[in-house]
Amino acid sequence: MLLGKVVGTLVSTRKDEKLEGLRFMVLERLDINGKPQSGYVVAADAVQAGIGEVVMYASGSAARQTTVTDQRPCDAVIMGIVDTWDVDGEVTYQKDED
Amino acid sequence: MLLGKVVGTLVSTRKDEKLEGLRFMVLERLDINGKPQSGYVVAADAVQAGIGEVVMYASGSAARQTTVTDQRPCDAVIMGIVDTWDVDGEVTYQKDED
Amino acid sequence: MLLGKVVGTLVSTRKDEKLEGLRFMVLERLDINGKPQSGYVVAADAVQAGIGEVVMYASGSAARQTTVTDQRPCDAVIMGIVDTWDVDGEVTYQKDED
Amino acid sequence: MLLGKVVGTLVSTRKDEKLEGLRFMVLERLDINGKPQSGYVVAADAVQAGIGEVVMYASGSAARQTTVTDQRPCDAVIMGIVDTWDVDGEVTYQKDED
Amino acid sequence: MLLGKVVGTLVSTRKDEKLEGLRFMVLERLDINGKPQSGYVVAADAVQAGIGEVVMYASGSAARQTTVTDQRPCDAVIMGIVDTWDVDGEVTYQKDED
Repeated sequence: MLLGKVVGTLVSTRKDEKLEGLRFMVLERLDINGKPQSGYVVAADAVQAGIGEVVMYASGSAARQTTVTDQRPCDAVIMGIVDTWDVDGEVTYQKDED
Repeated sequence: MLLGKVVGTLVSTRKDEKLEGLRFMVLERLDINGKPQSGYVVAADAVQAGIGEVVMYASGSAARQTTVTDQRPCDAVIMGIVDTWDVDGEVTYQKDED
Repeated sequence: MLLGKVVGTLVSTRKDEKLEGLRFMVLERLDINGKPQSGYVVAADAVQAGIGEVVMYASGSAARQTTVTDQRPCDAVIMGIVDTWDVDGEVTYQKDED
Repeated sequence: MLLGKVVGTLVSTRKDEKLEGLRFMVLERLDINGKPQSGYVVAADAVQAGIGEVVMYASGSAARQTTVTDQRPCDAVIMGIVDTWDVDGEVTYQKDED
Repeated sequence: MLLGKVVGTLVSTRKDEKLEGLRFMVLERLDINGKPQSGYVVAADAVQAGIGEVVMYASGSAARQTTVTDQRPCDAVIMGIVDTWDVDGEVTYQKDED
């Protein structure tokens, strides 16, 4: 899985019928330190992610293994909101409490 | 999924029999700001996309999950025409009305 | 799918038994303008492609969806000989008649 | 498979229900000489790997073939702790005994 | 498929139970001219490849289609020892007879 920040949403009215009801989010990719890196992905949302949240996403056939994406033409899915991760014993990212 | 602009079509007469009837479009890849980036893909078309339209495409096994691409040797499919997307609260792309 | 030019063939006598009878071609990758770009792939041939021909190839699990590659350990297949493609209204590539 | 060093853990409370019970590790990618290279991956852990250990991980659909990841939306899994590897007849990496 | 040279072996004692009995080889990637390029892969061996041999390997789900890798968490497999390949009518690589 890779890490991303939800920076926007995408609307598509004319789409394959199997995509009805999916929510598409625009993710900026993050590096291991939580810094934006070049690259983005449009991912289906399986966890009701909000703008600004840091998430984990899965690509490829794994993206069809959530209940909301099952058997749909979708190659990326947000499957977790990240609370925290650490690198070399230091907390790299910590979700704000609110 | 990634974003692309339909810039052309591709014709192949001598092809695997399972590809009969598919329409192949040439896509220029777009970055998160809607600017062309290096790279292209030839994708099957599941949504009757037209030249100049901005689309979402799915790669890998996801590309076989639309009705038109089911069980075909196809690794990229246009599965949505994009109406609009936003980044950091600003509209990045908006499809022309006509 | 991506575009390639068939530049050679590859022979492998000691190979997995499921690969018997497949023909392996060496492809030089082409960019959207039909120019060679760095990168190559060795692909199974599902369409009797010849040296010098410009082809479309599919990667990943899609490469097992042709009749000749079904259930074989093969991750790239030539699935179409390209006749022509256009970009921005101009013919970019046109197969020679002969 | 590629090689990585386990440098941290990741916690996600709000996640797809199919991910319950999986342990997520942050891996720094290693090159063939065991040196860190740019790039990371968040992988599910099938072998009880510990911080600092050098591991092999599998990506894509292979990541769902372990017992702990079966049918889950997971695209990377640690499937082996590396004891040793060699390159050109020299031992490149040797796990510490302790 | 891509081309690689077998430069070493990898040992992993603590690994997913589905990997028992597989042999892991370290491959240096080769370019179309048979020159080493940056990048490596650890691949399961389906053809009893030896150190120094030039091989073809398949990645992704194709890597589970050999008899030895069936349903295992393995994303790369050596599926052929290369005898020879040619580019533009010239022999690029020829396996030594011995």
